[in-house]
Amino acid sequence: MPYSHYNDLPAGIRERAAQVKLAMFDVDGVLTDGRLLYADDGRELKAFHVHDGFGLKRLMANGIEVAIITARMSHMVTERTAELGIAHVYQDQTSKLACYEQLIHALKLAPGQCCYCGDDLPDLAVMRRVGLAVAVANAHPWVRDHAHWRTQLRGGEGAVREVCDLLLAAQGKAQTELEQFS
Amino acid sequence: MPYSHYNDLPAGIRERAAQVKLAMFDVDGVLTDGRLLYADDGRELKAFHVHDGFGLKRLMANGIEVAIITARMSHMVTERTAELGIAHVYQDQTSKLACYEQLIHALKLAPGQCCYCGDDLPDLAVMRRVGLAVAVANAHPWVRDHAHWRTQLRGGEGAVREVCDLLLAAQGKAQTELEQFS
Amino acid sequence: MPYSHYNDLPAGIRERAAQVKLAMFDVDGVLTDGRLLYADDGRELKAFHVHDGFGLKRLMANGIEVAIITARMSHMVTERTAELGIAHVYQDQTSKLACYEQLIHALKLAPGQCCYCGDDLPDLAVMRRVGLAVAVANAHPWVRDHAHWRTQLRGGEGAVREVCDLLLAAQGKAQTELEQFS
Amino acid sequence: MPYSHYNDLPAGIRERAAQVKLAMFDVDGVLTDGRLLYADDGRELKAFHVHDGFGLKRLMANGIEVAIITARMSHMVTERTAELGIAHVYQDQTSKLACYEQLIHALKLAPGQCCYCGDDLPDLAVMRRVGLAVAVANAHPWVRDHAHWRTQLRGGEGAVREVCDLLLAAQGKAQTELEQFS
Repeated sequence: MPYSHYNDLPAGIRERAAQVKLAMFDVDGVLTDGRLLYADDGRELKAFHVHDGFGLKRLMANGIEVAIITARMSHMVTERTAELGIAHVYQDQTSKLACYEQLIHALKLAPGQCCYCGDDLPDLAVMRRVGLAVAVANAHPWVRDHAHWRTQLRGGEGAVREVCDLLLAAQGKAQTELEQFS
Repeated sequence: MPYSHYNDLPAGIRERAAQVKLAMFDVDGVLTDGRLLYADDGRELKAFHVHDGFGLKRLMANGIEVAIITARMSHMVTERTAELGIAHVYQDQTSKLACYEQLIHALKLAPGQCCYCGDDLPDLAVMRRVGLAVAVANAHPWVRDHAHWRTQLRGGEGAVREVCDLLLAAQGKAQTELEQFS
Repeated sequence: MPYSHYNDLPAGIRERAAQVKLAMFDVDGVLTDGRLLYADDGRELKAFHVHDGFGLKRLMANGIEVAIITARMSHMVTERTAELGIAHVYQDQTSKLACYEQLIHALKLAPGQCCYCGDDLPDLAVMRRVGLAVAVANAHPWVRDHAHWRTQLRGGEGAVREVCDLLLAAQGKAQTELEQFS
Repeated sequence: MPYSHYNDLPAGIRERAAQVKLAMFDVDGVLTDGRLLYADDGRELKAFHVHDGFGLKRLMANGIEVAIITARMSHMVTERTAELGIAHVYQDQTSKLACYEQLIHALKLAPGQCCYCGDDLPDLAVMRRVGLAVAVANAHPWVRDHAHWRTQLRGGEGAVREVCDLLLAAQGKAQTELEQFS
């Protein structure tokens, strides 16, 4: 049962999550289940999850910045992030570390104010530097071992929403969120 | 094993389900598994489940009204609901509560005669008002806690059919249904 | 672990399977996982499984007739069945029972020589008449209860292959099949 | 938990994997989950996994040759393998054994230097001849029984990556890989 673990978060995780002002996410395997769907006319498709999108919008509504950093480039990511109103979208990044460093410099944030959620080796360099490193349930084991926190759901099936809920809960905003929709 | 729990339904659920004359469903995460599938030419796709469609047709054949209420807007929903003969289809709804209130007013129904099946916070306001609030197995935990009943199957994998079967069973129509197809 | 149950099949099942000369399959939920995938330009998609296709070809290579009977109509079924060389393809069937009766009359077969694999109520009438009625793992419970045998795999994930293997094993052809590919 | 079994690999597997200079993979059911996705205009789609692609690139970067051998023919395989820089791509192969024999002759490799990862009977002949035969978690049971090693993940969900990691680990390159991305 996902999320029930918010009630007894280790103190260290709660403190890390409470500091976060910027939440960064990889795309394939994190915002999706890692499947790269190809059609025989050269088209590509990606599947995002409706729960993740809602969580990202609530994060931003609560003043937490959201960024997307991915090594690949696709119109699907451009379209989905535009739909959600995400301002910081970095595709086609050969070095996620360089992208991260420029971003926190521009936003005048310290590493401790940043969360990164990834699933594979190209995410590792950023994960080792941020205040809160999250691995999705289906992350590569070598990456999972370097995360502060692991989601119970898999990428593309609500893992990103879990991160959003963790941040809102740790920052004391879960109850207000819930009441707003009741 | 899904559905075996019909035989020992809590009395309260059976009584609630017996009153229902209008069954309302969210789309993404309920009639689908929550995946929003994007192609790189801007097209979108959705996957519905054949078991759900059959159940919705049987509900209507047994005199229970069916309504679809969703915040998003797509041709796929228009096409699938037309195919099933669903008359009450409300897409692009910023407030599901307002939509629900207009609908039961128009149909001259009391809240106790309504069932709503949802999976996330935007469904909560309606779920708190209807006689029978159902959450799908994969619903957000904050929503799941406010449901009278939870399906064993996930959205897009037969959860809606479970609701249909629950209503038909509670209204004493399961046996007739079964015999009709034997 | 699927298939391991071939070694200790109940005698009744083995005897039923040994008689089969015609294997009939439903499409949605049996040859697929039940998902009806709609695109916003009105196109539809279906996912078949490579293991099922191989099994159906091996059935036919071993002299067992294969038929597909479905209530829906799609080019995907036409294309996939043509690719596999299946001669008996009946789409758009409002009564699967009528289709079945015409087919066994034309093929001069007795009910005891027929196997039908289904997943929902419209399959029930045929399942109650054939010598070997199979329900896929994800079949509706009211259908599952009327099957002689249940697959361990779900529709669209290899359930049809399990039926093919059951028939080949019960007819003493599994070992030859295996050797042919070694 | 996948991959944790690298630490206590049976000695025989480690020795077999340490010799491998050519890793061969089937497509449907191995690089994909076995689903053949058809659209009603005759188009076909396939889903590859991002983790697998990364692993295959790392194999090649570490000097291990990669080959793809499949009985089917599709533009999706052509496109995906080109994207990954795989030189040895053999589609439309009626005999995988003949393809394999030509390939190792051309590359001047012994069977003990080859690994093949498959999932169904057409893969069996090659699997019985190579030094390291791997079956994916969802392989047909008759094939699974003839493999030296079985992945914990299913085809299309990271099984190929497991093979890549096994080879790199057995050849003493896992630690360097990890450090390179830290």
